[in-house]
Amino acid sequence: MGEYTASVVGGTGFTGGELLRLLNGHPEFDVVQATSRSKANKTVGHSHPNLRGMDLRFSDPDDLESVDVLFAATPHGVSMEQIDEFQDAAGTVVDLSADFRLDTEAQYDEWYDGHTRPELLAESEYALPELNRENLEGADLIASGGCNATATIMGLLPLFEHDVLDGSEQVVVDVKVGSSEGGAGGGEASSHPERSGVVRPYAPTGHRHEAEIEQFLGIDVSFTVHAVEMIRGASATCHVFPNGPVSKGDLWKAYRGSYEDEPFVELVAGGGGVYRYPEPKAVAGTNKAEVGFELDPSNKRVVVFSAIDNMMKGSAGQAVHAANVALGLDETAGLDFQGLHPVGAP
Amino acid sequence: MGEYTASVVGGTGFTGGELLRLLNGHPEFDVVQATSRSKANKTVGHSHPNLRGMDLRFSDPDDLESVDVLFAATPHGVSMEQIDEFQDAAGTVVDLSADFRLDTEAQYDEWYDGHTRPELLAESEYALPELNRENLEGADLIASGGCNATATIMGLLPLFEHDVLDGSEQVVVDVKVGSSEGGAGGGEASSHPERSGVVRPYAPTGHRHEAEIEQFLGIDVSFTVHAVEMIRGASATCHVFPNGPVSKGDLWKAYRGSYEDEPFVELVAGGGGVYRYPEPKAVAGTNKAEVGFELDPSNKRVVVFSAIDNMMKGSAGQAVHAANVALGLDETAGLDFQGLHPVGAP
Amino acid sequence: MGEYTASVVGGTGFTGGELLRLLNGHPEFDVVQATSRSKANKTVGHSHPNLRGMDLRFSDPDDLESVDVLFAATPHGVSMEQIDEFQDAAGTVVDLSADFRLDTEAQYDEWYDGHTRPELLAESEYALPELNRENLEGADLIASGGCNATATIMGLLPLFEHDVLDGSEQVVVDVKVGSSEGGAGGGEASSHPERSGVVRPYAPTGHRHEAEIEQFLGIDVSFTVHAVEMIRGASATCHVFPNGPVSKGDLWKAYRGSYEDEPFVELVAGGGGVYRYPEPKAVAGTNKAEVGFELDPSNKRVVVFSAIDNMMKGSAGQAVHAANVALGLDETAGLDFQGLHPVGAP
Amino acid sequence: MGEYTASVVGGTGFTGGELLRLLNGHPEFDVVQATSRSKANKTVGHSHPNLRGMDLRFSDPDDLESVDVLFAATPHGVSMEQIDEFQDAAGTVVDLSADFRLDTEAQYDEWYDGHTRPELLAESEYALPELNRENLEGADLIASGGCNATATIMGLLPLFEHDVLDGSEQVVVDVKVGSSEGGAGGGEASSHPERSGVVRPYAPTGHRHEAEIEQFLGIDVSFTVHAVEMIRGASATCHVFPNGPVSKGDLWKAYRGSYEDEPFVELVAGGGGVYRYPEPKAVAGTNKAEVGFELDPSNKRVVVFSAIDNMMKGSAGQAVHAANVALGLDETAGLDFQGLHPVGAP
Repeated sequence: MGEYTASVVGGTGFTGGELLRLLNGHPEFDVVQATSRSKANKTVGHSHPNLRGMDLRFSDPDDLESVDVLFAATPHGVSMEQIDEFQDAAGTVVDLSADFRLDTEAQYDEWYDGHTRPELLAESEYALPELNRENLEGADLIASGGCNATATIMGLLPLFEHDVLDGSEQVVVDVKVGSSEGGAGGGEASSHPERSGVVRPYAPTGHRHEAEIEQFLGIDVSFTVHAVEMIRGASATCHVFPNGPVSKGDLWKAYRGSYEDEPFVELVAGGGGVYRYPEPKAVAGTNKAEVGFELDPSNKRVVVFSAIDNMMKGSAGQAVHAANVALGLDETAGLDFQGLHPVGAP
Repeated sequence: MGEYTASVVGGTGFTGGELLRLLNGHPEFDVVQATSRSKANKTVGHSHPNLRGMDLRFSDPDDLESVDVLFAATPHGVSMEQIDEFQDAAGTVVDLSADFRLDTEAQYDEWYDGHTRPELLAESEYALPELNRENLEGADLIASGGCNATATIMGLLPLFEHDVLDGSEQVVVDVKVGSSEGGAGGGEASSHPERSGVVRPYAPTGHRHEAEIEQFLGIDVSFTVHAVEMIRGASATCHVFPNGPVSKGDLWKAYRGSYEDEPFVELVAGGGGVYRYPEPKAVAGTNKAEVGFELDPSNKRVVVFSAIDNMMKGSAGQAVHAANVALGLDETAGLDFQGLHPVGAP
Repeated sequence: MGEYTASVVGGTGFTGGELLRLLNGHPEFDVVQATSRSKANKTVGHSHPNLRGMDLRFSDPDDLESVDVLFAATPHGVSMEQIDEFQDAAGTVVDLSADFRLDTEAQYDEWYDGHTRPELLAESEYALPELNRENLEGADLIASGGCNATATIMGLLPLFEHDVLDGSEQVVVDVKVGSSEGGAGGGEASSHPERSGVVRPYAPTGHRHEAEIEQFLGIDVSFTVHAVEMIRGASATCHVFPNGPVSKGDLWKAYRGSYEDEPFVELVAGGGGVYRYPEPKAVAGTNKAEVGFELDPSNKRVVVFSAIDNMMKGSAGQAVHAANVALGLDETAGLDFQGLHPVGAP
Repeated sequence: MGEYTASVVGGTGFTGGELLRLLNGHPEFDVVQATSRSKANKTVGHSHPNLRGMDLRFSDPDDLESVDVLFAATPHGVSMEQIDEFQDAAGTVVDLSADFRLDTEAQYDEWYDGHTRPELLAESEYALPELNRENLEGADLIASGGCNATATIMGLLPLFEHDVLDGSEQVVVDVKVGSSEGGAGGGEASSHPERSGVVRPYAPTGHRHEAEIEQFLGIDVSFTVHAVEMIRGASATCHVFPNGPVSKGDLWKAYRGSYEDEPFVELVAGGGGVYRYPEPKAVAGTNKAEVGFELDPSNKRVVVFSAIDNMMKGSAGQAVHAANVALGLDETAGLDFQGLHPVGAP
């Protein structure tokens, strides 16, 4: 079987389920443990019907087994409390929460409820491989990037890398996301009759992912997130106003320059057919990001579109991608699912 | 029955069906004719299943009957060709297409394919009653406002009426709309398997409704329209950057000042419960607009949300509202449906 | 205003909200009270966004006001405990739960958890006006019929009234319902990510509505209920195997005989257009039932289709209809909404 | 690369796209050609956005290349006309249409529009590997089973294999399917506004797949198909009335006996968790069938549920599975996608 052993802490959540699916199909990993306090001893298929054929039962999170890589899919705040246990159990820890994404304690004071292990923030590596894969090789504490931040950074990164933007510009980011971002819990607002069919401004201002975007792109974005009718998917529309004139050729040069060799990026900018721009349902289930743009000469605006599956490129897929880089594996190992067509609102 | 006779030209389309539903339930109107060339002699219920109980058959559009009010629900370009026949048949013509919305031939040259009857543009009255109901009283040629323009204008109007904006500011408008905006025709892109679940940038730039917004608000907006998973509904998120400081109190004063006496406007700005901001599904089937806002102090931004049913406040409902004003009827006559809860993606 | 006063006990639930919407728009009723223990003093619009414009706050259920008609929209088991208070408060009580639908205590022992006031079962009148409107005139305790039972009875009733069936036949009823049937509570199974897009056999066998069907039609049906992707709606497909030969003419005669004068029934059996058979979305928001059928000569089967809005004809609409009959009002008063087209999965 | 070459005739349709996806990820196949007359020279990603990364352009169907296996994803009636060209081009032809599924010309006269090459019907092998994999080894003309027939046969097969049924019983099959069954064409009835949210009896009686079911199970089923809100998926509910008593133990014995070693079958019959019975969305994108059952003692009924992805186990997946068997490959090669959780209405 696989060369490396892996475990998933927090296996009943949506992200935990996706990690189990990916690792189970990964040629280099053997999943030896998935933890859950509430569902201990139940099969993973009990929580995740697509994994009914997988022969694994949840075990107690207090009994962590030694593995090569531990993936933590726990709610924000848990990893910083348990990081010692995680690092005792595994040489490589990939945390999917926000606990180790930001650089400084001050940022956690501003955007979250502070941090209990600030001394580790300098050690951890943020994982958005297209942005910083060179930092991930051999890393032992990896903080996988957030979904809405990833969608936004993937859209804007080439403009910074190719000097179309310098950080002083006005940038409005209007994000549309699916209901899986809310996790498996669910209250009245996420019940099916209430959540179905909404265009709900669920983070009109002040979304925490602004901090990640600002930290990595050096720009203060005007950020608004809407919940729309889908389960998976995050689509970011970035309205950008460069200081000087920009041509379509400049844009193609920037985006091709940044992404043409990236295995998980597809440039989609106004060709023919039904899907002329990035579309979340076209990447559902995959680790791909679709990125495209349009020029609006009348108001000196560049409109950038990017689409990801928030559970994959925005979470579990990115975490596995980061682990592949960290361990020196083929980057696409275990991440080769192509997505479906036709497909509804996955 | 009703005091006034009415007809609907173009009765098989979605908008025509909504007009028939509204007029059929209107206390002051009798529907005496609905035209359709392709479905002549079929019942209106054949096209519109909700009207199966209505005793009316489509008749040929070449045989227009004389009525008090004629509603034209034909594609753009038809009304300007047939306006003489329409005005011969009816003292009051309410056109739901774009043919008489703009003021000048030059605008039609820029945004549409020119205009064949430009001399009528000065006579016609644009209908968005909250904006200009005083012009509508006694009007005999009314151009009912477009759906995306209506959603946007309803959101921004109080900021102009109360001098929060003067037209020099940066305004980004990010609109999400349902599939009924595409009309009853339908090709591959609007087939169910392809259209379901999309977040599709269908007008990344250059949407024609920019012209209406600019004409009536005097501001050049950066306008992008996305198709999302719903049938009815238009939700406009306006990202506004006022030149000077604005408080939440200023905003409440502006919006209450403009809208507190409006029968079809609901202010929804961050209270409790599941629906804290404007939500298209909460107004589906109604002529209501929900409008709300949030202040983002960190980037000096006001985010304005507005939600309408594109078939109603954005089309047939607004046309009936305008006719009510034109004839001096109770503005809400025939428009008292309250909407449904719970409701899905109507 | 209205001639009669009305109250709604249990006003925050989905059914309570629909009752408030209907009574608020009803020409003969004034809503004087809506109760809720948990939301006391909040506006009804807090729970039901479509009622944001309604000037009413929830009040404590312990302080019932005297009204002409009290509508109880409480969970099963509550009405039987509080029926004395309800009857003290109102001359006419319309209960929307199952507490007074069945005839005998033995049935409650078999299908529910027994009954605490069995002596009232003989007094209460089941309300499915097309079945037994004559019993409802002047009734003071009315048990409004259940949604799945109503859909099924509406489909099968003409076959019994016109002797196509005698009760000895094999009848399979396969029902598809929307998520509003589960009520406003909601747990993991009804969270949006889990509930979306299902075809879930939620009552494979033994659904309690079998008891109502058997009681009123005198036939033992094989009954299975599936949850499908919609919010409102119940669609019953009845596969019927008559003992002798049946022609299409026999069927039309039976269905026309039973329903041609019914104000809320539409016969839809295989005509032209897109909607050739009963369709729940065509009746969403209305009190209508669409009923149709098809003959399958190859296996001597009659397939009957019926579609209702479970919140309306299957619940709140039927309750108001019953109250109209009980008080001698126009049966359609307050129930004239025509439904929408196009419309999604309302 | 792969050991075998393959081509797809009819590559722009939904089924053709799925074949391309599967073969592209299959370890033993190289896709050398995909044909399309209308889209010749366009990339396959133009039609199928999930395949944007695939380096292949459609070519003219008149220029078939020689391959080991040709998959025909053409509309019914095309393969029988072109079968000579197909067999000239490939040693193994897998046809996904109905053209070679039935045994006799008389059946094609009854259920379809006759047959032009009836002499080939005896040679072709129907492919539903769980039913008859032994016939498929080395087969050179394979007719992949139809989606609704596959769902039904998968549900009922164990009852025949283990003598719970003998073919004389009453069996009602009520199927719910997604919009992809209608193919990529699309007219008014399948436009998004009309098709969304329906529970539409699209084949109330007389569906052609009855012929397949009857041919392979020897029973005349009462068959009705409803279109519901999903894109992919077929869910069959079989209401079965055995002649004698049947226990739950008998059922488990039958289903385990038939399926416990099948790589693509999951038995799901009333355990815990959210997904207690077969659910199409749990198998979307996979070649799996979920099968389960429930006993209804009160009316001597067995209710059998089965769920497949109509594009996969009901079409392209089954075709690849059959090719794997025909060529002696690992049956699961190229078919190991596990499905997603959570997932909407894929």
